[in-house]
Amino acid sequence: MVDAIKVLAVRGAPAIGVAAAMGLVVALEHALDTSSPQHSARDLLPSLAAELEGARPTAVNLRWAVQRQLRVAATVDDAQLLPTLRAEAIRILEEDRAMCDAIGQAGAALIPHGGTVLTHCNAGALATAGIGTALAPMYVAHARNVPFRVFADETRPLLQGARLTAWELQRAGIDVTVLPDSAAASLLRSGQIDAVFVGADRIAANGDVANKIGTYPLALAARTHGVPFHVCAPWSTFDPATARGEDIHIELRERDELALAGDRIVLPTQVSVHNPAFDVTPRELVTSYITDRGIISPPFH
Amino acid sequence: MVDAIKVLAVRGAPAIGVAAAMGLVVALEHALDTSSPQHSARDLLPSLAAELEGARPTAVNLRWAVQRQLRVAATVDDAQLLPTLRAEAIRILEEDRAMCDAIGQAGAALIPHGGTVLTHCNAGALATAGIGTALAPMYVAHARNVPFRVFADETRPLLQGARLTAWELQRAGIDVTVLPDSAAASLLRSGQIDAVFVGADRIAANGDVANKIGTYPLALAARTHGVPFHVCAPWSTFDPATARGEDIHIELRERDELALAGDRIVLPTQVSVHNPAFDVTPRELVTSYITDRGIISPPFH
Repeated sequence: MVDAIKVLAVRGAPAIGVAAAMGLVVALEHALDTSSPQHSARDLLPSLAAELEGARPTAVNLRWAVQRQLRVAATVDDAQLLPTLRAEAIRILEEDRAMCDAIGQAGAALIPHGGTVLTHCNAGALATAGIGTALAPMYVAHARNVPFRVFADETRPLLQGARLTAWELQRAGIDVTVLPDSAAASLLRSGQIDAVFVGADRIAANGDVANKIGTYPLALAARTHGVPFHVCAPWSTFDPATARGEDIHIELRERDELALAGDRIVLPTQVSVHNPAFDVTPRELVTSYITDRGIISPPFH
Repeated sequence: MVDAIKVLAVRGAPAIGVAAAMGLVVALEHALDTSSPQHSARDLLPSLAAELEGARPTAVNLRWAVQRQLRVAATVDDAQLLPTLRAEAIRILEEDRAMCDAIGQAGAALIPHGGTVLTHCNAGALATAGIGTALAPMYVAHARNVPFRVFADETRPLLQGARLTAWELQRAGIDVTVLPDSAAASLLRSGQIDAVFVGADRIAANGDVANKIGTYPLALAARTHGVPFHVCAPWSTFDPATARGEDIHIELRERDELALAGDRIVLPTQVSVHNPAFDVTPRELVTSYITDRGIISPPFH
């Protein structure tokens, strides 16, 4: 599971949380089967939890889910440990599904009839256990027979917008067009976009948002052209322990994500890269925080 | 030559101009060799010129170079037509080289000692007959032993920043780091960038700049963070016939530029794309126009 999270086979802050909660159960069962008999599940739990928490630094849901499992573990005796963690993982999964539905219900009315919205990266069904966060209002609006179309940033370097968002939206029968990230600003300027919906990997107490690299310039362009900029996230993404965006650790990723296009080398061998996974959008640029607790404003308590 | 310009084997506004002037001569020679004897060079010239001019719609240098050849052609008799066009093409090449040097001289002082600059796409030696436009100040500063480093946007979809700019700068011994286009805004926000240098494909009479898609959001982010934004272009890129940016025709390019990464398909087959080659940066966001006639301001006459 740590490998799956590191290579982004599992990605999207909510999906990472669900996977970590379940991964902890599977890892514990495996460790009990293979370790020497003197180790109890309770002995093994802390190091497995720490290893899972360290898989990626930015998404707060990862830590949130693991810490929730540890808290639950502290309330039961050893015989109940494993079944309790298993039940809690399933509860996290079900809560995640319900959270997606609630975000969709809260945000659907922000998609105008016949309108056009834009999104970045993938904060959809493939990033959660349910119908997504940023895409949830679109799925709900579509289910209500509201006609609209979507522009999806391709989202370099890993192209989650092209590979994931476009795939899941067209599969759902929603009209979707992919564009290079750098084409979003002129599209916003053209007046064709009614609203922007993005997800979040961590939201600081003051409302600053860490999300996929490219979210910040998108928010700047949306503000410049008077287009509403909505951040969609479950309550678990709000991190009271992080005061401001500057306090969020931004993961720097591998050179190969920029150096290779498919199997082709597109970067001279001696050239280095700057490849941050996320950027921080200041709260001033956010129109709405669409959550499973409705549309809320900072400060978040 | 038309194919070479269309597939971007020859690209960069100044290089396209030089190639078109030379291409016209080669095409004329070829047409005289292969067409029936009753066609003179003067008969063949208009249709060849029109075909070259139509290869790409946005770069003004293409039209400029072809029109210059047609004006020269009108001043000589038939016997002198071909040698005159050949001499003029070589003159355009030499002027382009001198233009690059002049831009470099005009702009080099804007690169601070020990500073860091950022560029987008490739407006370098590979886009001109000389040392480039946006990269010319860097080459001149480097020749003056000014230490500095460069961040180069990779520049989706065709990755001219990674494939061309990074290649030519590291070959010249200049420290270069490549980043995703969408990471430039947070880098500008970090305070690490002293100035941005970009080229231009067409500059309207009011100073609005058509350049590679992604230039406009970069200018917005530079303005937000107080970083100077310099547009480097020869006089031939300024188009008095175009009043404002809105009047510039923006070329839309092929779906495959977004659908394929190397040989891999990264976009579901039924999803359409929005793939404009250029955007327009309004004059308000431009700090300096660095030209072969020095640093100038609109209106341009």
